[in-house]
Amino acid sequence: MTWLDEIKFDSAGLVPVIAQDKTSGRVLMFAYANREAVALTAEKGTAHYWTRSRQKLWHKGEESGHFQRVHEMRIDCDGDVLIYLIEQEGGIACHTGRESCFYRAFKDGEWVVTDPVLKDPSAIYAKPH
Amino acid sequence: MTWLDEIKFDSAGLVPVIAQDKTSGRVLMFAYANREAVALTAEKGTAHYWTRSRQKLWHKGEESGHFQRVHEMRIDCDGDVLIYLIEQEGGIACHTGRESCFYRAFKDGEWVVTDPVLKDPSAIYAKPH
Repeated sequence: MTWLDEIKFDSAGLVPVIAQDKTSGRVLMFAYANREAVALTAEKGTAHYWTRSRQKLWHKGEESGHFQRVHEMRIDCDGDVLIYLIEQEGGIACHTGRESCFYRAFKDGEWVVTDPVLKDPSAIYAKPH
Repeated sequence: MTWLDEIKFDSAGLVPVIAQDKTSGRVLMFAYANREAVALTAEKGTAHYWTRSRQKLWHKGEESGHFQRVHEMRIDCDGDVLIYLIEQEGGIACHTGRESCFYRAFKDGEWVVTDPVLKDPSAIYAKPH
């Protein structure tokens, strides 16, 4: 049994992945990976996922140039969730042009945007995202 | 539309939740919540989830005493993932008696345990977990 076999992929062959900034500890994004994506992440040292909306392997940064260097992978007690501890190239993980996808906080009964857009998405992506 | 309506629950009525230590930034666990669990978390200020294995509402700490005080809730760009920024009572989030469920790291082709057991699970739980 290899380390890949120890990961419990769900019925769709996916495992949730939390991408966390290795220095600040901030959670930058959440996505899913299939077996191939996890294997490529370990092999290449950059974060690979499976995009459920586009139904394909996703090398994060392939469109935006914002690759994620993976310094460590962690797995949880049940073996069904991963963390990628990353260094985010460009400092932008979110397709909205923000550092983190978690840019809204709950305050007084509503979700409030707390983070600035660092770069206009139209300047990041050649085509609509 | 209320803040709860803005959360996109999946076909099972669940949303993934990342529980993160508000001070250290460490990701302590990953679980799911239904609408009622999120509402109770906001109302009571302690983390509530939905346990898929037991198929019921789960007030974290109800068995172990290790409640999680929620200082902030965040939501991602797609509205389908939450973060609970918490203070972990007892300093133990994992049912194995460790601080975090993510106690194994990938090293040289295998998952290596990096974290100590802080308390014997049999001393935490009255009945087998």
